Parts: sequence; C-alpha cells; structure tokens
Amino acid sequence: MKKCEIITIGDELLIGQVVDTNSAWMAEKLNENGIELFQITSVHDDREHIIAALNEAFSRADIVLTTGGLGPTKDDITKQVLCEYFDTQLIEDTSVRAHIHELYKERPDVLNRLTATQWLVPQNAEILPNRVGSAPLMVFHKDDKLLACMPGVPYEMKIAMEEQILPYIESRIKSQESGEIIHRTLQVTGIAESSLAILLENFENSMPAGLHLAYLPKDGIIRLRLSSYGELTETQMTQYFDQLKELTKDYLIAETDDPIEVIVGNILKARHQTIATAESCTGGKLASLLNKHAGSSAFYFGSIISYDNSVKEHLLGVPEEMIKAHGVVSEEVVRVMAESVRKQIGTDYAIATSGIAGPTGGSKEKPVGTVWIAWATPEGTTAECFHLGKLREQITDRACMKALVGMIKRLEVRS
Amino acid sequence: MKKCEIITIGDELLIGQVVDTNSAWMAEKLNENGIELFQITSVHDDREHIIAALNEAFSRADIVLTTGGLGPTKDDITKQVLCEYFDTQLIEDTSVRAHIHELYKERPDVLNRLTATQWLVPQNAEILPNRVGSAPLMVFHKDDKLLACMPGVPYEMKIAMEEQILPYIESRIKSQESGEIIHRTLQVTGIAESSLAILLENFENSMPAGLHLAYLPKDGIIRLRLSSYGELTETQMTQYFDQLKELTKDYLIAETDDPIEVIVGNILKARHQTIATAESCTGGKLASLLNKHAGSSAFYFGSIISYDNSVKEHLLGVPEEMIKAHGVVSEEVVRVMAESVRKQIGTDYAIATSGIAGPTGGSKEKPVGTVWIAWATPEGTTAECFHLGKLREQITDRACMKALVGMIKRLEVRS
Repeated sequence: MKKCEIITIGDELLIGQVVDTNSAWMAEKLNENGIELFQITSVHDDREHIIAALNEAFSRADIVLTTGGLGPTKDDITKQVLCEYFDTQLIEDTSVRAHIHELYKERPDVLNRLTATQWLVPQNAEILPNRVGSAPLMVFHKDDKLLACMPGVPYEMKIAMEEQILPYIESRIKSQESGEIIHRTLQVTGIAESSLAILLENFENSMPAGLHLAYLPKDGIIRLRLSSYGELTETQMTQYFDQLKELTKDYLIAETDDPIEVIVGNILKARHQTIATAESCTGGKLASLLNKHAGSSAFYFGSIISYDNSVKEHLLGVPEEMIKAHGVVSEEVVRVMAESVRKQIGTDYAIATSGIAGPTGGSKEKPVGTVWIAWATPEGTTAECFHLGKLREQITDRACMKALVGMIKRLEVRS
Repeated sequence: MKKCEIITIGDELLIGQVVDTNSAWMAEKLNENGIELFQITSVHDDREHIIAALNEAFSRADIVLTTGGLGPTKDDITKQVLCEYFDTQLIEDTSVRAHIHELYKERPDVLNRLTATQWLVPQNAEILPNRVGSAPLMVFHKDDKLLACMPGVPYEMKIAMEEQILPYIESRIKSQESGEIIHRTLQVTGIAESSLAILLENFENSMPAGLHLAYLPKDGIIRLRLSSYGELTETQMTQYFDQLKELTKDYLIAETDDPIEVIVGNILKARHQTIATAESCTGGKLASLLNKHAGSSAFYFGSIISYDNSVKEHLLGVPEEMIKAHGVVSEEVVRVMAESVRKQIGTDYAIATSGIAGPTGGSKEKPVGTVWIAWATPEGTTAECFHLGKLREQITDRACMKALVGMIKRLEVRS
C-alpha cells in the first residue's frame, strides 16, 4: 500500500492564527482512494525548514503533498524553495498566463506585476491547472516518488485534489495490487468509554491482527471505528461490524460515520417531514447544523432564535409570569418554545433549547452548563434537563448533540 | 528563545475523522507566553511512529508537548510507549486514584477496572492534576529538555495547558532573558492580495531583518500580520504597525486580530446598542457568530431564520407577490426581512441575508453564490448584492463576513 505524507506550510499555522482544516479533509480523500496517510507535518515559511520536512517525508513516504506558500506575496516562498530543492529555475508558462488573464478579465487591477509571478513555474515540474485560483498546481518526481503542491486556501485545495491530484496519483503511482483501506464506524451514546471497552473486551481480543478498533468520544457520543489497511475483505469486515453492532445495540444511534445532523435530516427527508428550532443558549448553532448540508431545504424550514427574554415573550409567546415563576432555563419555558415554533412555522417537529452557557448567569440550583431541551412532535412534547460542563463552546456544542440525539430517538419511536 | 514542538497522537487525525483544532489553540497560547512553536506533527497510535516523532522533536526543540492517546481503551498506547521511551514502569498514584473516585462519585459504573488503569502512571514522570478528566498530565525530563503529555479532548487539553502546563513551563524552563514574541495584526478588505503587496512594497523593503510581514486572505478579508521573535521592542513594533495602518487606511476594517463578529459586538456594547438577524441562506450561522462569545447577550437579541419561503411570508411579512415578482434572492425581499426583524425584535440594527448557497437553485441571472444582504439601521436601510463563489460552505461563510464588514462600515458612519 502506498504511503503518503502531508506537509502544510505557513507561519499562520504555527502561531495559531489559522486552524488546519485542510489536512483532515485530504486525509479522508486519501483513505477513500486507498492511500494511507502516514504523517502530517506543519512547518514555517522558511527555506531550511521546508527542505528538512521534504527530506524527512521522502524518507518515509511514496507520495508527498504540500499545501500553502504559493501566493504572490513576499512571505510565500514555497515555489522558490522547490526550484532550489529540485535544482531548476522558473520559466513562464503560457497556459497558466492565459488562465490568469481569463480569471481576472473583469478585474484588470489584479493583473499587476506580482500576479504576473504566478505564471512563472519551475522548469522541471509538471503543471496541472488550478481552475479557481492563480497559483498553478505543481507535480515533481524524485526517483519513483512524487511530490504534489497545492495552494493552502481550502476551497482551491479541495478542487485541486478532487479534479487533478487524486486522478493524477490514481493514473501514475497507485499500485493496482494494493488492498483496500476499509473503515466502518458506528456511533453510540449513553455509556462511558471505559464501560464500553469492557463490554467489547472479548470482541477486541478475538479480532485478527489486521483489524483495528478505535474509540472516539466527543460531545457525549462515542464513535467506534473498525479499520483495515488492505488486510481484510469487505465481507470479513462486514462480519466484524455486524458483531459490533449486536454488542452495542442498547447504545447504538448510528451505523455510519455521518454527522448526527445528517442522520436526522435523512430520516426526515425519507418521510417527507419537516423540522424547526427555537433556540436560546444554542443561539442558531442547531439551526445552522440542520441546514449545513446540501438538500436541507427539503426538511429544515426555519427557526426563532430567542436570545433575549423579550423575544421569548413576544415572538414565542412564553408568558412573562412563567419566566418569573420558573426562570427561562426551565421545563415549562422550553416546552412552550418548542410548541410555539412548531405551530408558527408549521413543521412536523420542533426542538427548543434554553440553558446557561456561561461564563456568567449560573446559580447554585442552576449552575453554568444546565440546559433544558424540549422536542415537540406529532405525538406530543417531551423535555429533558442536562448538565453539559463548564465551558461555553462545549456546552452549546453538547446541547446541539443532545438535541439531535434526542430527535433521533423520538423519530425511531415511529419507525 | 525556547523552541517548542507539538506531537498530536491519534489515527483519527490521519484518516480525517477529526480536525486538529488543538494545535492552533496551543500555538496561540505558546506565542503569548513567548515560546516559539517550531513544528506540529500528527502521528498514528503506533509505538514506532510515536518513538520516531519524539526523537525528531527532541532533536530540534527544548519543549515537546503531546496530546492524545491517554484514554483507558486498548487503542490508546501513549502511556505505555512513554514508559518504554523513558525506561520506566507504571505505578499506582494515590492522588490520581482519589481524584478519579471524586470525579465519578455519582457514576459508580464508570469506576471499573479499565478506569482503574488511569491511576497507573510512569514512575519517573511528574504528575500534574487533570481537574476535569481521568487521564493524569505527565511531565518527563530528558537532559535539559521537557516533555508534557495531555489528553486530546479539547476542553481537557485547554484547562491542562492554562492551569498546569504553561505555569510549569514558565517556572522551570523558560529562559528569563529571552525577548518577547510580538505579533500585531490588522485587517483590510476591498483590495486584492497582489495589489496590497504592491502598495506595501516600499514598506516591506524597508523593514529590518527581525521583522516579518504575512498576508492571510480568508473570506474576502486579508489579515496583515507583523511578527518579531524577540528582535524588536514594543515601541519599535508600534512604529512599524502605525506605518502599516497609514498605508492601508483606505481598506482598513480592524486594527486587531479579533474576529470580525467581536469587533461588531464591541462597538455595539460600547454604545449600548443591539442587533438582530433575519437569515435565509446563512441559516443561523450569522446569529451563532454574533452570540459565540461570552457577553453577547448585551447586544445580540435574537433572529428569525427563514429558510423556507413560508417563514419569510408568515413570520417576516414578505408579501407573496414580492417573492413572485422579484424572487426570494432580491433587494426587495432582504430589505423587508431586515426591517421586519428589526421592528419585531426591537433592536437598533438588523442584518438580513438571502442567497443561493447551492449546489442547486442557481440560474443564469442568479447563479449559485449570489447573495443579497440588507442592513436596517436607525439611519435607514441599505442593501448590496455579492457573488461569493461556488461552494456552499464558502458562500455562507463569506456572506457572514460581508454582513459583518458591512455592519462595521455602517456603524462607523455614526462614530
């Protein structure tokens, strides 16, 4: 099986100004294409550092991918360093030049002398087109190994990978006889990681050497992943995965790695049903999860985000006396919120959240992290109280997961 | 200046199941504490791979931080590998044991024999408390270098870094005579990266050797960062930063690295003013940006997310005929949305978005990426049309940035 490494280049990654989201996306695509990603390394925009990272990566991997450092400005030096590394020089590429003129035909001010450096390319590189940006994609060969260089801008990188780099790797270097990388993931909730591991102990001990089980806990959900790097067949994998499903059936909420909001959306779409939200502490995060993915307009209709109490009263009809008597973080209030938004927007389901996301606003009875969630369904309204930790982002992320997991459970009642 | 490296351990990072958000957060904290982060390396849960990464990191850095692989399950092997690396064995730690019993006192099922492995620690490690989790923090010494190991769960890692690891580094290893790391960032919009670089060419050529300028374009905003690693004083840095502000004044939207939503929030808070949103294509993303940070309830009141047209009509009062005549993605519709939500929620300002996030729904006149945004203010309502690319996530992210940048401009009119 061919091994790959990713080198992400840019000072911004090493001072924490930018989160490297590219690598995870690339990793997933490589795996889908049967290429093992061995290591990810983030280095500075620095000549010696880039050269050292290239040498180390080539010593371990067959394919090296880099992102970043290809812009027209002075801090971007990747192209110059590659010329030195591969002992070559920059020459003008007329097709890149034509592409950049086309790209900026309505913005002549951008066709300046710095942009002109973008159509200078290393003489011994193969140039692949970057359909959506000005930095050309470059492929270099070193013995029987391959280096492909892409911009660091995520959407340019994604189009480059899907349309150019992965097909190139497929056609030139990927060994045809290598086995498949197979990952199968299920998701459970309502059990501690250590208790789950004890439940699965015999299963783990009986697994063959080429099969790996990983536990990935996050926001109250544990993803269990079985992985094989070319050693098991699909049929064998399915057998082990079925065993795992059977063993975890009391806690199982999903048989795929799909995000929970996708699972909710798929059930609703299949049933031609719809959903709305009324959010206080989650503040639109739940809405934005539900409509994050293409096709969500089929089931997600809208939301009322009632951060301030006046919005709960005037737009969601929560009585002022109810808030006075029970507080905004209460079963009574979330039930009214959920029922009101379901009725006003006219959906089959509605979810409401109200909680104390902190850092202030907590009390002894209702500490920071207390969240009430209600689900209004055709069968009636139910509500639950959760204690979701101490940190603002953690509380709101977990509240969204609880809301979605609760929705799956209520949808399953009807299935 | 002390050099640091981060090793993130976990197969999930290398198959793309999890985005490494920890490293950027840690990088920022290290920089704030005057420690240079030299490299980030992500490796598998694999004995040889972890050992190789440790050796490489120690060959370059004074401080090595690891995250991940400290759970009680079989796939987590970091602690065992460290015992081998530092030639030591696991022993029981009674204070960790007591902490874990306290942590799970209301969940006796979690106090099982796998959890019991969490209070076994390498004999020659210094143990620091993990206030919020079961995996103890471990510090090892190698010659005059230091290794600190933390869990990979983001909120556990954050508390560990802030409360234990950074103070430990500060007290034991950080050289007192080293200079400060200084980063100063401003943000501009409305100019291409290459044109900006030409504008700043003389400035860049006149910068002293210890000063670095970086360009970070994202979602239509370019962050310009000046960095010095111990070579400039604060006063010198301020001089260069002032020059940079003067040169970019026609495009300047922020003099800090604060997220744009924080800048909007700070202006509103200072003026005791409030804001609401009415969102179609951004679907709650703008609301959730505005209330992401602590203290947002002072200025953010609520939103109506009108994903479906029926919600635009019934909750925002957009006339059906208007939608028929102009389409939902139109100046007429966003103006009504903004004015309606401002009035209903009773805020000083309101922002409305309506656009085609794709992948379907585009037409020749209004292709995917077309977004109308309206700002309703005490001075009246204005609207603009944008073309924000082709990818769903990119379009909605950029729409949020355009909405917030537009808000800053409209707030500045009054300042």
